[in-house]
Amino acid sequence: MKPSHAWRQWLPSLPVLQWGRAYDRDTLLSDAVAALIVTLMLMPQSLAYAMLAGLPPEVGLYASVAPLLLYAVLGSSRVLAVGPVAVVSLMTAAAIGQHAVAGTPAYWAVAITLAFLSGLLLLAMGLLRLGFLANFLSHPVISGFISASGLLIAASQLKTLMGVQAQGQSFFELVLSLLSHLDQVHGLTLAIGAPTVAFLFWVRSGLKPLLQRLGMRERLADGVAKAGPVAAIVVSTLLTWALDWQGQGVKVVGAVPQGLPPFTLPLWDLDLWQELLVPALLISVVGFVESVSVGQTLAAKRRQRIEPDQELVALGSSNLSAAFTGGFPVTGGFARSVVNFDAGAQTPAAGVFTAVGITLASLFLTPALYHLPQATLAATILVAVLSLVDWRILRKTWSYAKSDFLAVVATLLATLALGVESGLVVGVALSLALQLYRTSRPHIAEVGLVAGTEHFRNVQRHTVAVSARVLSLRVDESLYFANARALEDRINQAVASRPELEHVVLQCSAINDIDASALESLEAIDLRLRGAGLRLHLSEVKGPVMDRLKTTEFLHSLSGQVFLTHYQAIHELSPEVG
Amino acid sequence: MKPSHAWRQWLPSLPVLQWGRAYDRDTLLSDAVAALIVTLMLMPQSLAYAMLAGLPPEVGLYASVAPLLLYAVLGSSRVLAVGPVAVVSLMTAAAIGQHAVAGTPAYWAVAITLAFLSGLLLLAMGLLRLGFLANFLSHPVISGFISASGLLIAASQLKTLMGVQAQGQSFFELVLSLLSHLDQVHGLTLAIGAPTVAFLFWVRSGLKPLLQRLGMRERLADGVAKAGPVAAIVVSTLLTWALDWQGQGVKVVGAVPQGLPPFTLPLWDLDLWQELLVPALLISVVGFVESVSVGQTLAAKRRQRIEPDQELVALGSSNLSAAFTGGFPVTGGFARSVVNFDAGAQTPAAGVFTAVGITLASLFLTPALYHLPQATLAATILVAVLSLVDWRILRKTWSYAKSDFLAVVATLLATLALGVESGLVVGVALSLALQLYRTSRPHIAEVGLVAGTEHFRNVQRHTVAVSARVLSLRVDESLYFANARALEDRINQAVASRPELEHVVLQCSAINDIDASALESLEAIDLRLRGAGLRLHLSEVKGPVMDRLKTTEFLHSLSGQVFLTHYQAIHELSPEVG
Repeated sequence: MKPSHAWRQWLPSLPVLQWGRAYDRDTLLSDAVAALIVTLMLMPQSLAYAMLAGLPPEVGLYASVAPLLLYAVLGSSRVLAVGPVAVVSLMTAAAIGQHAVAGTPAYWAVAITLAFLSGLLLLAMGLLRLGFLANFLSHPVISGFISASGLLIAASQLKTLMGVQAQGQSFFELVLSLLSHLDQVHGLTLAIGAPTVAFLFWVRSGLKPLLQRLGMRERLADGVAKAGPVAAIVVSTLLTWALDWQGQGVKVVGAVPQGLPPFTLPLWDLDLWQELLVPALLISVVGFVESVSVGQTLAAKRRQRIEPDQELVALGSSNLSAAFTGGFPVTGGFARSVVNFDAGAQTPAAGVFTAVGITLASLFLTPALYHLPQATLAATILVAVLSLVDWRILRKTWSYAKSDFLAVVATLLATLALGVESGLVVGVALSLALQLYRTSRPHIAEVGLVAGTEHFRNVQRHTVAVSARVLSLRVDESLYFANARALEDRINQAVASRPELEHVVLQCSAINDIDASALESLEAIDLRLRGAGLRLHLSEVKGPVMDRLKTTEFLHSLSGQVFLTHYQAIHELSPEVG
Repeated sequence: MKPSHAWRQWLPSLPVLQWGRAYDRDTLLSDAVAALIVTLMLMPQSLAYAMLAGLPPEVGLYASVAPLLLYAVLGSSRVLAVGPVAVVSLMTAAAIGQHAVAGTPAYWAVAITLAFLSGLLLLAMGLLRLGFLANFLSHPVISGFISASGLLIAASQLKTLMGVQAQGQSFFELVLSLLSHLDQVHGLTLAIGAPTVAFLFWVRSGLKPLLQRLGMRERLADGVAKAGPVAAIVVSTLLTWALDWQGQGVKVVGAVPQGLPPFTLPLWDLDLWQELLVPALLISVVGFVESVSVGQTLAAKRRQRIEPDQELVALGSSNLSAAFTGGFPVTGGFARSVVNFDAGAQTPAAGVFTAVGITLASLFLTPALYHLPQATLAATILVAVLSLVDWRILRKTWSYAKSDFLAVVATLLATLALGVESGLVVGVALSLALQLYRTSRPHIAEVGLVAGTEHFRNVQRHTVAVSARVLSLRVDESLYFANARALEDRINQAVASRPELEHVVLQCSAINDIDASALESLEAIDLRLRGAGLRLHLSEVKGPVMDRLKTTEFLHSLSGQVFLTHYQAIHELSPEVG
């Protein structure tokens, strides 16, 4: 270990130094090809997510340049593609909506400030090594939240797809509003949107097998199928231009300014910062979790690793760079990263090339997007986000564990009914409460000796030998304040119902910790048993637990003994059994 | 089991039916003697606690009649004495202070409403069997909270003792205010208060041994020592009357109305109810915890039991009765219950007799209290509450567990600086967060075979045999969402650093639960290991955990096997070791 190691632990390391040294021509080619494919896909997606967030479409392009560069230098994943993503864009819209009107310059300024705060928070969490906090988002909560977000986004896109002015605070209100505006559906808009949705679904599931049946190699067929959205965009744009659908009331993307991302600054308004703090924190955590899970899945496929705390630093820097270049909150996206990976990207240099591609597109291609119908963009988002909705988790958790099922359903419903921020908070609070509740009712098994062995098993599950004078209890949980009384109750109950009892032995093999409250309880149990003429013994106490008990008076005052194994305890206390 | 049992579970049982049947003359005598002693002690205490709560002194007497009767019928403890207690009175003052000015009729009305809400909450918790919620108040939090409350009350009594007008929101402000008003100390008041404090401390520690040395029997000496406060009250009242100290500025209790407790109704004001809800809940929980711990300690001494859910019903009814008879929130008090117990009370009938005693006193004795100096009452409270302050818990938890120490200190400081309600909330939130944090970083030990046995121990603590091809890990915690990633990280790290590794075996003897998130993690670990040419095995999986895993695909897709014992696993996978 070099002497420089100590301070390195507390500074962000630069992954670019690792992969940069081994960079060669083959890698360059792979990265460049991947970058071209990702650029084609990102162009429309960036516009669409900016509009989902309530921002002008070009802001989506701005948010896809600087963050990619920063992540390429600082990120620990080789293939993660950073930029606007669906769920974070939705959360951005929810957060800014309370402070400014969508489409105004003030709204954009708040978006920039939100990216800035989110960047600061991520960076701080990374430098303070707080990446572990994301572990408190359980899988059921994430799943319920992402599914609900998918439904929320889908409902909001239906509005654009049908050309109506529906609105609502919650998913349910939005759906009701859509239904009540059905008479105002703009026919031509729907005639563009609906077939596009059908086409995109067919591209996803039917095109690739068809191409393969027609003799195309799998890899190429895959690439062509992935280009489906681009085809939909090109065709609908050309039709709209040729037939002047805009003149017939179809909403188009319109004029997107040509040019480089602008230099911008966040608003220096402490009151606003205070109000944006919680939304920024939630956006940061959700973005981080999405990014890390994508990154980890892809890294594992090539036996690479990603460093959560390093990811925080990289994502934080990316968001800060978004704030200074006219962007909005970004994170590592699932779809774009998978495309990047599948297209053969080897290093973060692919991200740099993608950034160059987007910059060129911003400079030269935006006029071509003028006639792109908004309904087409809505269709691409709709199809993309519906794949986020995972109904199987409901059945899966229902059969596995009711508490996990409850967490999924509560998060899902709360997000649909109360919005993204409240939904997430409800989900996290509930899952933590359920976890505490579960550990507060520990499984306590009375155990007996399995004949011919030195093993002890639950008397209710196995045929085992027990003594009427000795009660053997195995507590299947660490003892802490919330469950210590459950043990007291169990022992009180046993002592009250078994007059012949002389010894209580706690088999502590599953007790990983005893906190101060539980120690008090053990002392109280011992005192009560002693008063009733019984003795309390412990067996199989773990090393760390024993170390700590030795610092107290408990072991001296204990009425019984501490046995190394439970068999020794039974052998000594009731020789007729063991 | 009788058929009536099922519905009985959901109805409050009536403990009075149990002890009432066996009631005889001996029990009557014991109970009557105890009641006389408790009445003498309760009289001044009830006045003092009512004044601590900011209420007229007679309210303390009213709160000591009906609640005792209700508890006698419904309570499961034989000797608990219900009435005004120090900490709950302090919390009552804090809760009402935001809604009315102390000493006004409006203030009293809010106190009655608070007792009503607290009673409803306790009753509801009892009927819904939510008594377990009190378990989430850890011992360090209770200890820190009670100590801080003791200090807060002591500081507030110093004011009365010195006859100054100090005031402050927090303990620290109050102490500063006291110090800045030192020039306004009323000499004669302090000349009554200070010697009384000294006398009471001496009575506590020095009088009983002295009486015993003088040849008095221990029991009698104990009784005389307990009567010390009554002596202080009689003497100071007589002196104040005889020397007309009131004319010289000494504040006295003054005219306490004679008469039965009045019939009162809570305020029917939904806005007020909403604002009082949280304080009422905190008062209920604290009162319940205090009551149950006193009840349990005393019940255990006579090998009786108390039922927490029944206690909730009894305390709830007691508080409701307080609300309808002009009282304020009550609970089972420590001092009065111990006196009741020591004086020989056998059944709750002692409580009924005490209620009769207090009623007689309210009817006939209150004029005698006119000249009682408030400083004398303050002295009795001061001496009583200082015994609540427990500094030893700091040293004890410091040496036992830093997280428990942190919980004590945080609760103590938060209560002193922010007040009783915020202090309690901070303490509970912190202790829960610490518990979650602790379980999110599980102890994961690499284990090896102890030579000549089938036992496996931590390689860092014992000399054991291990194979380079097999990694044996024992996770000392149930696997759930917050710690599943720690296991992933640990295994990733081991696999990356040991190229010769072929098998990873998880010894699951301490894993009491695996939630849906942790199951995902295990699947991900298995997939990654399989991708890297390794296999994942489990050993010693507990019955309940195995039952649940069997409902999933995990066991079928697992790359390795599930072994009954860890020895079997090692014996098969690395015969050179086992």
